[in-house]
Amino acid sequence: MRRLSILGSTGSIGVQALDVVSRSPGRFSVVGLAAGRNAARLAEQVRAFRPLLVSVSDAATAAELRERLGPDAPEIRHGEEGAVAVASLPEADLVLAAISGGAGLRSTAAAIEAGKPVGLANKESLVLAGELIMRRAAERKASILPVDSEHSAIFQSLVGHNHSEVRRLILTASGGPLRNHPAERLPDVTPAEALRHPNWSMGAKITIDSATLMNKGLEVIEARWLFDVPPERIDILVHPESIVHSMVEYVDGQVVAQLGVSDMRGPISYALAHPDRIALDLPALDLARVGRLTFEPPDPKRFPAYTLAYRALEMGGTAPAVLSGSDEGVVEAFLAGRCRFDDIARICAQVLDAHRPERLDSVDQAIAASDWGRAEALRRVAH
Amino acid sequence: MRRLSILGSTGSIGVQALDVVSRSPGRFSVVGLAAGRNAARLAEQVRAFRPLLVSVSDAATAAELRERLGPDAPEIRHGEEGAVAVASLPEADLVLAAISGGAGLRSTAAAIEAGKPVGLANKESLVLAGELIMRRAAERKASILPVDSEHSAIFQSLVGHNHSEVRRLILTASGGPLRNHPAERLPDVTPAEALRHPNWSMGAKITIDSATLMNKGLEVIEARWLFDVPPERIDILVHPESIVHSMVEYVDGQVVAQLGVSDMRGPISYALAHPDRIALDLPALDLARVGRLTFEPPDPKRFPAYTLAYRALEMGGTAPAVLSGSDEGVVEAFLAGRCRFDDIARICAQVLDAHRPERLDSVDQAIAASDWGRAEALRRVAH
Repeated sequence: MRRLSILGSTGSIGVQALDVVSRSPGRFSVVGLAAGRNAARLAEQVRAFRPLLVSVSDAATAAELRERLGPDAPEIRHGEEGAVAVASLPEADLVLAAISGGAGLRSTAAAIEAGKPVGLANKESLVLAGELIMRRAAERKASILPVDSEHSAIFQSLVGHNHSEVRRLILTASGGPLRNHPAERLPDVTPAEALRHPNWSMGAKITIDSATLMNKGLEVIEARWLFDVPPERIDILVHPESIVHSMVEYVDGQVVAQLGVSDMRGPISYALAHPDRIALDLPALDLARVGRLTFEPPDPKRFPAYTLAYRALEMGGTAPAVLSGSDEGVVEAFLAGRCRFDDIARICAQVLDAHRPERLDSVDQAIAASDWGRAEALRRVAH
Repeated sequence: MRRLSILGSTGSIGVQALDVVSRSPGRFSVVGLAAGRNAARLAEQVRAFRPLLVSVSDAATAAELRERLGPDAPEIRHGEEGAVAVASLPEADLVLAAISGGAGLRSTAAAIEAGKPVGLANKESLVLAGELIMRRAAERKASILPVDSEHSAIFQSLVGHNHSEVRRLILTASGGPLRNHPAERLPDVTPAEALRHPNWSMGAKITIDSATLMNKGLEVIEARWLFDVPPERIDILVHPESIVHSMVEYVDGQVVAQLGVSDMRGPISYALAHPDRIALDLPALDLARVGRLTFEPPDPKRFPAYTLAYRALEMGGTAPAVLSGSDEGVVEAFLAGRCRFDDIARICAQVLDAHRPERLDSVDQAIAASDWGRAEALRRVAH
């Protein structure tokens, strides 16, 4: 029985992870849950999974949760300190880090410091501080198991093969809801249009990132650290059907890929059960029915955001954190109707240009760089 | 330096294997070569690779080879005994078994008895006597490294994963040159039409087998023994572009696949260098340029031959050897213009129906069963 702490349990990944746990009786128990402000859903999860420790974002939500659960309530904490406690719970055998955004970084780092294997869904942990996180994970012997479908695919395409023989990582991208939008109409895209993702049901921020292709750029940064492959050997390939989740090309020209239906429970379960797989009763991939898979190169003219990730990696140090923060800020502004779609990449590029990167020595520094990027982006939106 | 014996060195696979050797200076030496009657080509190979021992099919070819090579000739033998000597040469670290047809079985078996790792391109070894061959390979600790592109793909999609978690093997099939031929015109297909394979350049027998889909059926038999997966969990998927070389579906619904350009030097080099890969200067797969991959189910009405493989496996024992032999006979008759295209599957089915399978205890028995199937098929063609 593997004991899990789930950070971000009421979010999309957290809920699907608990679904995987429910579908695998006898395989997992849940010892810790950390969430934000959704006390109602968290109370249900606590009743169903009986964790030892629970954390929420603030004291008011903690009080609400206590009231909902009554005398059966487990220990309840709150704030970053609470999430860190869930992440480093001595009883946990594996931590699923699925808090979204920069807020997930400290709890991911805490799980690693505690030497726990981490199922990593929080991409900001590697985007903001990938070099640090991977170094500490190696020192603490904490394995990092990717949960993103693309990185899980690469992970599955690397096991059993020699890392030194990797020639290229190929991250597939759906191309998002605006893939066929003409360039001249992109400035006028509304949040509603950009939120219509064809294949994956995800949060608003990541869906906009998928429409700009910034998401794929951030995944290049993740892959760079997770698999220790330099950015010039990480390519992006647009694949609208999202069936080939990503690929690895080896030095002999042969390519290993992982394919599947668009269901995050596949990669989530792979991370939770690793090195085993769970026989989930999910729809199987039927390629004869799918009929065809298509591929095209990404278009840096219409979707320049992903190119900024390569630029940030080249700048190094704090630059990827600044890019992530500026994107977070400007996407928030776009969703609020305060800037245009094409402002997202334009403002992120300006913020990156204005940044003088520093060597990254601490998580605090990465968060400060991201905060600076975010503030700088919002300042530019306001002008 | 890995020392190789290459059985079938003047055939398509043998020539490409020696090309791989030439492109990988310092990695391989060639200690043994076995070929048929092509003394001219074999003499060139001997001059280029300087093996210790060479074998040809008969005394006349041996004499011709001796004359061509003059005083520099290595030891030259002939006949099955000669091929067996090359296969079990003490100096060989790995044997590439690439003699085509049933003729390759005894030398493959000899390499295994000598405890050598075998790069297996001779599919008849597993079709005729898979259960025996794999059992002896396990007992002699001789690893079998598949060279067929499909089986190499499955092998590459299995390494690092748990065999017990395999749900299905999915063998891809180009569909051959007659994929879009209407059913009513199939009886009149000429050998020239059936020999026009769209993706792979191979020998005549295997190209006809590709047109009937018998080839894919024989590969199901190979896969059944090579990977110890029962036939009901081995599927065939038609994929005309031959880019996805085959796939493995795991119990969690996730699929791992190997992709590449249609160049046999990829799988050949993988078998020769295993567990390493060789940085070959071959064209890389460019999916953005390929643009699309298509898939469809095989059509048992137009191409019933592959279904006979499942039937033969169900019959068990000597039945797959009989199927292989009958196909060899009737394809020979078809190429000689002595029967129609649709006779191939029809006559193979009749021969299989007429066969009373026996438990398979020896290579001799497998060869006898194949010979019987061949004779029986030719007898039916003559009627």
